Amino acid sequence: MQSNENSLDYDFDLTPIFRPKSTVIIGLSSRNPDHPGNAMFSKNLIEMKTKTYGITPRANEIDGHKVYQSLDKLPEVPDLAVVAVSARHTLQVIKEIAEFGVKGAVIIGGGFAEIGKEGKKKQDELVKFCIDKGMPFIGPNCIGVYSPPIVDTFFLPSERLVKPKQGNVAVISQSGGVLIDQFFINCKERDIGISTAVSIGNKAMVNEAMLLKYFEKDPNTDVIAFYLEGFHPGDGRKFCETARLSRKDVVVYSGGISSAGKIAAGSHTGSLAADGSIMKGAYKQFSVINPTTEQYLTNTLKTYSMLANPFRKYSTMSIHRDKIAVLSVSGGHGVICADIMDKYGLKLTKFTDKQKEDISFLLNPVASRIAGLNNPIDITGSGTDDDIVNILEYLLNAPNVEMIFTLLVPQVPQLSMRLGRSIMQIGNKYRKPIIAYVPWTPKYDLIRDALEMHYIPCGHTIEETVEMGTALILKGEGGIRKKMSTL
Amino acid sequence: MQSNENSLDYDFDLTPIFRPKSTVIIGLSSRNPDHPGNAMFSKNLIEMKTKTYGITPRANEIDGHKVYQSLDKLPEVPDLAVVAVSARHTLQVIKEIAEFGVKGAVIIGGGFAEIGKEGKKKQDELVKFCIDKGMPFIGPNCIGVYSPPIVDTFFLPSERLVKPKQGNVAVISQSGGVLIDQFFINCKERDIGISTAVSIGNKAMVNEAMLLKYFEKDPNTDVIAFYLEGFHPGDGRKFCETARLSRKDVVVYSGGISSAGKIAAGSHTGSLAADGSIMKGAYKQFSVINPTTEQYLTNTLKTYSMLANPFRKYSTMSIHRDKIAVLSVSGGHGVICADIMDKYGLKLTKFTDKQKEDISFLLNPVASRIAGLNNPIDITGSGTDDDIVNILEYLLNAPNVEMIFTLLVPQVPQLSMRLGRSIMQIGNKYRKPIIAYVPWTPKYDLIRDALEMHYIPCGHTIEETVEMGTALILKGEGGIRKKMSTL
Repeated sequence: MQSNENSLDYDFDLTPIFRPKSTVIIGLSSRNPDHPGNAMFSKNLIEMKTKTYGITPRANEIDGHKVYQSLDKLPEVPDLAVVAVSARHTLQVIKEIAEFGVKGAVIIGGGFAEIGKEGKKKQDELVKFCIDKGMPFIGPNCIGVYSPPIVDTFFLPSERLVKPKQGNVAVISQSGGVLIDQFFINCKERDIGISTAVSIGNKAMVNEAMLLKYFEKDPNTDVIAFYLEGFHPGDGRKFCETARLSRKDVVVYSGGISSAGKIAAGSHTGSLAADGSIMKGAYKQFSVINPTTEQYLTNTLKTYSMLANPFRKYSTMSIHRDKIAVLSVSGGHGVICADIMDKYGLKLTKFTDKQKEDISFLLNPVASRIAGLNNPIDITGSGTDDDIVNILEYLLNAPNVEMIFTLLVPQVPQLSMRLGRSIMQIGNKYRKPIIAYVPWTPKYDLIRDALEMHYIPCGHTIEETVEMGTALILKGEGGIRKKMSTL
Repeated sequence: MQSNENSLDYDFDLTPIFRPKSTVIIGLSSRNPDHPGNAMFSKNLIEMKTKTYGITPRANEIDGHKVYQSLDKLPEVPDLAVVAVSARHTLQVIKEIAEFGVKGAVIIGGGFAEIGKEGKKKQDELVKFCIDKGMPFIGPNCIGVYSPPIVDTFFLPSERLVKPKQGNVAVISQSGGVLIDQFFINCKERDIGISTAVSIGNKAMVNEAMLLKYFEKDPNTDVIAFYLEGFHPGDGRKFCETARLSRKDVVVYSGGISSAGKIAAGSHTGSLAADGSIMKGAYKQFSVINPTTEQYLTNTLKTYSMLANPFRKYSTMSIHRDKIAVLSVSGGHGVICADIMDKYGLKLTKFTDKQKEDISFLLNPVASRIAGLNNPIDITGSGTDDDIVNILEYLLNAPNVEMIFTLLVPQVPQLSMRLGRSIMQIGNKYRKPIIAYVPWTPKYDLIRDALEMHYIPCGHTIEETVEMGTALILKGEGGIRKKMSTL
């Protein structure tokens, strides 16, 4: 698509789309209260802060609220128009709003490139017109933007959604379903905050690189996360080049990486899925983090989101993959951690005999007799809070340790509920990351919360803990690449 | 170790250990209320149903309950003795209880083979004596047995634990920590019931194969799950041969599969970890299911536990890996599912043009216009309960479909909270498995519960759903191998 190959040269202002002072919803139904247009109208009117108008030729009011029959009846020119009419009427509506002076649009409806040649032609006409007019649009075939507390074009009733808190992660997805489900639910469940969420659908005009540029400048965003099934020709390279220059964390979860997935992606958004292994290599080269599972994605976002706090200076440190210590109160946990670290390409640092002796002296007499002093250190179920804190401080000072995984099993009798606070207090004294494992039961939230409120990430499983540590290492490695590439 | 290599030839009755009429705890402290012996004494006395005696030379009562100074003062001979004294006193205590007529023991303490030569010698003496006397023991270096509602030797205070419901999965672990943490918490969280849990520690006498034989006969157990870091010489083969003959599902989660993990396992339980790839091959050959992650383990146990219900006759069916249909209301979910299926070696069945046309006719008019009719089927956010149920019934009758993954995203406006019940009602009419994905928020428990209460497993993520399906396929394939091996 010609227009897309050049779209990056246009520098459209997306602010009217994400922070509109006023919004008009075009396409409401006087009969179907669940029509997407109606859902968006009442949602923005009542739940969000954008001034909201509705347009339908067939009614004066919807749900008791005044609506207008046509654009020219509106008391002002809205910044944003959300177009919820069928594909065959869309171009006409787009022409009218551009004429009226609207600054940006979200096109919800399907029936464009994703259904074949005929739809592709309609889509190309839209793009050509909007580039000429300088009016950017998101979509078509999407659910649009969620930009709290301003605007929300997700036409799904709010009570059906699980909404994460406001925070510092921008989420951009080629699938509206994945956005409201995997991203929203995992972020809510793991307490990751979202700055803005964008469903880009066919991304006919506003593409990945344009959004990357926008969120690069957004002061509320530290991490920019994508779900992508492929790129339009030329867009992959532009995306990677833009990502390389970004000072923020850029994370992509890829769909359509298998041949079966690629076929499915083709019929989903009409986009040609890029070859999985080529994009994987490109992401690595251009410092785009590319977690391979939904779980790994969530843990990566959580780690980057937390470590964006300026207190955690080590978030830009380079951590060597073979300088990791593991401290556990259960031998089995240490064994499993060592296996998982191997899978993620991390290595246990080797303690010297002197270090093992030192660690032994730090332990209570019972634990000292039965503890395993190799790495992973297994202080056994006889371990105490003091044992853990003292060994942690020792490791935080050890020159051959650059990151510590501490596997807490508070089930053992002598650990107290102050353990999280004690670890946090010692951790705060040093510029070296600790990542914790705390069993995922509310029973141990007192420990987990003390750690996480001070930006020490906690995995729900040992694998999650290792994923968090790996994400931190990748960030450091990427940072070095970024620095090198700008020399 | 000579004794271990022959241990399988002895056919000890383990019933006194798992279903003791009465139990004696040996080794209580008059000073430390958190001593393991004291914890076990009060736990069994108050929380469990075994009649419980405590022995300590230094007190007449502990926590207000009568205790005895020596064995000969007891009013009866207990079935089970739990030995919580130090390594150097253990053999003497074992001799006394054997003499007194106790039928089985659990040896809690460490300081045996796991600490080296000296400890290994002590352990060998114990084994030799107990084989001669015909008195089996679990351990040493373990937390013993949890056999609700009878007996619980896990010396950790109950309030620190998360206890799963009673059910049909027996859990045997070489790590007490992994048992009470990963197994207990995941089973509780995913509503998997446990029949018995055993921490085998150094498994000096009672080994994996003996436990397999015991649980094979246990009417409360349908699934037998292990966490293992390695085998004593000769025991791996015996275990596999016993598993091959088992009519129950045998699942092993392996620790110490990497070289770093193997070293850690060596210092943890003093057992030589078997070569990871050799055991992996052996497990496959002998129909032992060997999930590679904690998450996959949990989903495997959940699937087998649910499908042990006689209503779900397809649990022994052979399902072809390339005869799977995916039905989704979100295109992105279908793409991700296709990718994950590829990773697990599953393939999407190909629909004929006739089938696609049939499916299209089953859809409501709006969905019919925009739906993706390849496999995965994407009925889009315009889909309804009827669409899903009608297509499911069509697929349940399709000869080229042997299993269906249905990816439910109840966030979309037209799906109702009756959806789970509707799917379950149609699913119950056919002998073909449906595995569902339902987002992991309590908001959608009404849907999830309708499915799971009728033994249709639901994953919390798409990957979990695929893992459940893969586990079901592996079970069928294993069943065929088992049948073949007995011909």
